Amino acid sequence: MTTIMTESLAVKKTAIRRATIKDVPYILGFIKELAEYEHEPDKVLCTEEMLEKTIFGSVSYAKVLIAQTEEGIPAGFALYFYNYSTWNGKPGIYLEDLYVQPKYRGSSYGSALLYALAQELVDIDGGRLEWSVLKWNTPSIEFYKRLGAIPMEEWQTMRVDGAQIAEMAKRSPGILE
Amino acid sequence: MTTIMTESLAVKKTAIRRATIKDVPYILGFIKELAEYEHEPDKVLCTEEMLEKTIFGSVSYAKVLIAQTEEGIPAGFALYFYNYSTWNGKPGIYLEDLYVQPKYRGSSYGSALLYALAQELVDIDGGRLEWSVLKWNTPSIEFYKRLGAIPMEEWQTMRVDGAQIAEMAKRSPGILE
Repeated sequence: MTTIMTESLAVKKTAIRRATIKDVPYILGFIKELAEYEHEPDKVLCTEEMLEKTIFGSVSYAKVLIAQTEEGIPAGFALYFYNYSTWNGKPGIYLEDLYVQPKYRGSSYGSALLYALAQELVDIDGGRLEWSVLKWNTPSIEFYKRLGAIPMEEWQTMRVDGAQIAEMAKRSPGILE
Repeated sequence: MTTIMTESLAVKKTAIRRATIKDVPYILGFIKELAEYEHEPDKVLCTEEMLEKTIFGSVSYAKVLIAQTEEGIPAGFALYFYNYSTWNGKPGIYLEDLYVQPKYRGSSYGSALLYALAQELVDIDGGRLEWSVLKWNTPSIEFYKRLGAIPMEEWQTMRVDGAQIAEMAKRSPGILE
């Protein structure tokens, strides 16, 4: 009972809001801290200018929620986009990054962000909430399983990037509009 | 030399075009045939009405390219959406479904669809082309590797769907706009 009340209070004081272009320095900071946690700090090529252009520009390729403290300080974020399932005939939400700064952990910011995404999924009549986790990150995988998440173990994600994209693009027959 | 010429001719006669709402019956047919190939025919809950609403309605959650024969008959399709990489600070393309009917295979329709997607990726200044494949589907994995694709073996995709989404959404603290 006490535990439930504590958690409920913690969720109540957590404010989740949509990010604006003014949050870009915080967002880039979170992206870099998450990459460090993932042992890949050198993989972040993203800059403030790139975030401004690709998320807060004339075309927006991703959405961002900020979890903030009672004092209005950003404590963490969720960066996501809509995906699509042909089996469901419905959109879904793909969570690209979820991060809460170490000093703010244990106050349900992470759960609150996930719950807010579930709410948005319901709002768009979507079917699935998905994300990826590094296989060595057992604590996170256990946390996600407790939330009801299932690992998609029968599927393998494939990727082409870099120079190979240019090679493939050269062979395109063109796209008729 | 002969092989190269044959392939080059085959690519030349392949027309790739953007789908319109008139293609919905073909698209649903391809989705169902692909699910049968994946041994999951019962997983397709999608209907023509759902495709019309979610892809050709006021909000569009996915894009579709059709590969057609010289006679203008749809032979296969690629259904995809834009994703986002925070490491790149750029959008990417996620290919949800790629399918060519058995009678049209061996004429480079599948490659032409992938090349057209690589072209679109270049056009949007995107970083990656990604998709998922069933782990038992070794012939497809080998084909993709020959194209230059790399399996993302260190990442595990997680999913929440069904009743669990409603449970999570109930706990949402709300999203401040």
